[in-house]
Amino acid sequence: MLKEYVKPSFPEKEEVKRRLKEEEDKLFSYQMQIKEKKLPVMVIFEGWGSAGKGGLIGRVIRMIDPRFFQVASLEKGATEDEQRYPFLYRYMVEIPEAGQFKFLDTFWMREVTTAVLKGEISDEEYEKKIRSINTTERQLTDNGYLVLKFFCHIGKKDQKKRLDLLLMDKDTRWRVNKWDKWENEHYDECLSVYDKYLKDTDRSTAPWYIIDAKDRKTALLQALSLLNQGIDTALKNHSVAVPILQNTYPLVSMPKLKDIPLDQSVPQEEYKEKLDELQKKLKYLHNKIYRKKIPVIVAYEGWDAAGKGGNIKRITGALDPRGYTVQPIASPEPHEKARHYLWRFWNRLPKTGHVTIFDRTWYGRVMVERLEGFCSENDWQRAYNEINEFERELTDWGAILIKFWVQIDSETQLSRFTYRQNTPEKQWKITDEDWRNREKWDQYEDAVNEMLEKTSTRTAPWHILESVDKKYARLKALEILIKAIKERL
Amino acid sequence: MLKEYVKPSFPEKEEVKRRLKEEEDKLFSYQMQIKEKKLPVMVIFEGWGSAGKGGLIGRVIRMIDPRFFQVASLEKGATEDEQRYPFLYRYMVEIPEAGQFKFLDTFWMREVTTAVLKGEISDEEYEKKIRSINTTERQLTDNGYLVLKFFCHIGKKDQKKRLDLLLMDKDTRWRVNKWDKWENEHYDECLSVYDKYLKDTDRSTAPWYIIDAKDRKTALLQALSLLNQGIDTALKNHSVAVPILQNTYPLVSMPKLKDIPLDQSVPQEEYKEKLDELQKKLKYLHNKIYRKKIPVIVAYEGWDAAGKGGNIKRITGALDPRGYTVQPIASPEPHEKARHYLWRFWNRLPKTGHVTIFDRTWYGRVMVERLEGFCSENDWQRAYNEINEFERELTDWGAILIKFWVQIDSETQLSRFTYRQNTPEKQWKITDEDWRNREKWDQYEDAVNEMLEKTSTRTAPWHILESVDKKYARLKALEILIKAIKERL
Repeated sequence: MLKEYVKPSFPEKEEVKRRLKEEEDKLFSYQMQIKEKKLPVMVIFEGWGSAGKGGLIGRVIRMIDPRFFQVASLEKGATEDEQRYPFLYRYMVEIPEAGQFKFLDTFWMREVTTAVLKGEISDEEYEKKIRSINTTERQLTDNGYLVLKFFCHIGKKDQKKRLDLLLMDKDTRWRVNKWDKWENEHYDECLSVYDKYLKDTDRSTAPWYIIDAKDRKTALLQALSLLNQGIDTALKNHSVAVPILQNTYPLVSMPKLKDIPLDQSVPQEEYKEKLDELQKKLKYLHNKIYRKKIPVIVAYEGWDAAGKGGNIKRITGALDPRGYTVQPIASPEPHEKARHYLWRFWNRLPKTGHVTIFDRTWYGRVMVERLEGFCSENDWQRAYNEINEFERELTDWGAILIKFWVQIDSETQLSRFTYRQNTPEKQWKITDEDWRNREKWDQYEDAVNEMLEKTSTRTAPWHILESVDKKYARLKALEILIKAIKERL
Repeated sequence: MLKEYVKPSFPEKEEVKRRLKEEEDKLFSYQMQIKEKKLPVMVIFEGWGSAGKGGLIGRVIRMIDPRFFQVASLEKGATEDEQRYPFLYRYMVEIPEAGQFKFLDTFWMREVTTAVLKGEISDEEYEKKIRSINTTERQLTDNGYLVLKFFCHIGKKDQKKRLDLLLMDKDTRWRVNKWDKWENEHYDECLSVYDKYLKDTDRSTAPWYIIDAKDRKTALLQALSLLNQGIDTALKNHSVAVPILQNTYPLVSMPKLKDIPLDQSVPQEEYKEKLDELQKKLKYLHNKIYRKKIPVIVAYEGWDAAGKGGNIKRITGALDPRGYTVQPIASPEPHEKARHYLWRFWNRLPKTGHVTIFDRTWYGRVMVERLEGFCSENDWQRAYNEINEFERELTDWGAILIKFWVQIDSETQLSRFTYRQNTPEKQWKITDEDWRNREKWDQYEDAVNEMLEKTSTRTAPWHILESVDKKYARLKALEILIKAIKERL
């Protein structure tokens, strides 16, 4: 794309001025519509060092009310702390909420192309990152995000001139870093790498736009008119259905819930002994994964009153409190609901060497959100694949990911609900909503069966914890977790 | 994609039967909705030889009323005649009309992958074909087509077994060709090439779906449910606005219409002499391009009464009637309107060595269709790039493409209209519509200026024919055409 790029011809000065005014007015009037229609707008600026990305962003935002936008610069590369998260992490936490602009001064392109130029990643790793980026950009646009990607382009000579000018003045010298100089000296090599990246990530739902950045005024005009054009298109659409991609993940065959026997039980004495033994093992292993910096994610889903809480306690009972977090997942808060549904989970990932236990998870999308109509049919149908993609990012990163479905039958739930209702100190655990959900048991059972079928990938299969006897379920959970960690070490 | 593909697990026989019934009923009820909502549906079946594509198509169409679908097989490769058109030609003529299904037994994938396997195309030619395919599939989906791409997959051993079975019986032996055998013997090599192709052309708006074709019943179930799923998604959407891609074609700077001087003229004597000389040259060159098999496309646009007809006559006057066609372009007929707006032009291309002159063209999209509201704003905004892409296919193919804008001023039009009105034998040339269009002169002028600016690519620039003096315009047209042909020879 860059290689074939030819500088467009721009109109006369006066005409540029007139059009700038026009585009500025347009953007000004769009901002309220974006707010009202709850459109999330991500504007990514990439480009050559000293092409003027920062200044350009500064001029674009002049027209927008400060309550409606945020600017973030990700140019610096991952901090030591951020390096302990998946590659996508520090970018995903930055995505805007619905009705807001987010202007990004460099994004995931920079990290990838710099790594290529420094010879730090293999072709295979490059391909993997490109896949992650394309997948994520597709997930964002599929979920209603407007993603605009601008590459600010200047020629080798112009870049040199700008760098020299900055270097001449001691007040601006700090703005030129080693990388900028290197980039200019290896301009053609960089051009090839940037060009390849643009081609590899150019998709019609999130296409690249090259901005000729030689002249400030015309650069601004290009940025504004592309921004307005993108907004215009996005505002015309309202909750568009997008194709459901084929689930290409190898799946493990799962039984239907109704076919799962639930008559297992463990005698109290044997339970105590076994629990003690397993917890000791887990404690020992927790230490090991901490030192080996392996992240562990344990995800719990299951029927109300199935015994998730007690089960989790038996896991955490074996762990060093400095090395784990339990994340109870309730309905999303407004700022969470306003973003891609996986955002609040990206935000809650463990660092390498840590354990995070999710008490309810991202699977809410294909259970409660599906059944209560909190998202469209197209949304939840798409979600199986999106979740598999999300989990692949986690396992590719190196995480041990264990997913538990805590299973009981309807009668057991009824007796536990009734017991809670009739026992004063347990009454807080039972709400009207629990009873309402119970009425939808059959619909939930269908949804869970579909979820188990479509998301039990080989790298992150579901494990059923038969929990009519809670003791049995607890021992099984510990055993599965221990086995998974041992296999990794 | 194929390399990573893992055979999914299928339900029990009874369950398959039940689901088949369900999907068949669904497809049955969708067909009327497709008709009503005017959705064009393209279902492309690719895959291994003897994977059962034909049979599968046969079973899918059982549920559909014969008035609503067509089947085409493109497996055989281009005929000698088809080879005289651009690569995309024999595929583009097959696209369905709105409200219709088209089932395609192999499509452009087969031609490309076979050429790779036979070592007939370079990497560069491969990339070019991939670009053409991705561009075209995007144009189709952007213009409201549902494009479903199925790859019917079987293992090496299964393919061998099927081939042997077919070969054993003299009634089926003819169905196995040399290529099928070659493919089986070089299964892994083919797998790599197919896998790369699928990856290179997998886009979220027209994604690939792999069908495990080992078992007939489950293959049908997969095809039907993917088809229904795709239809379901497409029916939910109605004239969706899609992103306007950046025009990355190098453009030639064009003057505004109002700045074009129109005072040129040629004395009658000089005109006659010059015309004669130029026509002789063109006649000679026509012979040459015929022998060198160069296709020539001349596209005329211009104001009503600007003198297009007379201008065209001076070109054709020099040509051998066996080697050219004039295509007068009026409003599209119903079967043309029901397809991608470029379809009727794909259909009217010259063969290699021939000349086609278009009296009005595909630029109607950004003039009359824009101004009369025959397409949405998003449609015509997208069209500049789509047209540039279309023209690139033509010039890449080797065509000489000349585009003329025949220019007069508003006063000249008025006096020609008035003359026509008042001259009995000219009256047929003037209609109420001409007068109505004339009232919109300013809007047309804006649209034409935008068109000239955005589609005057270096490989296919616009040429202005100043036609207040028609003689001048005629000589200029001949000169431009002659120069272009000479440059090519």
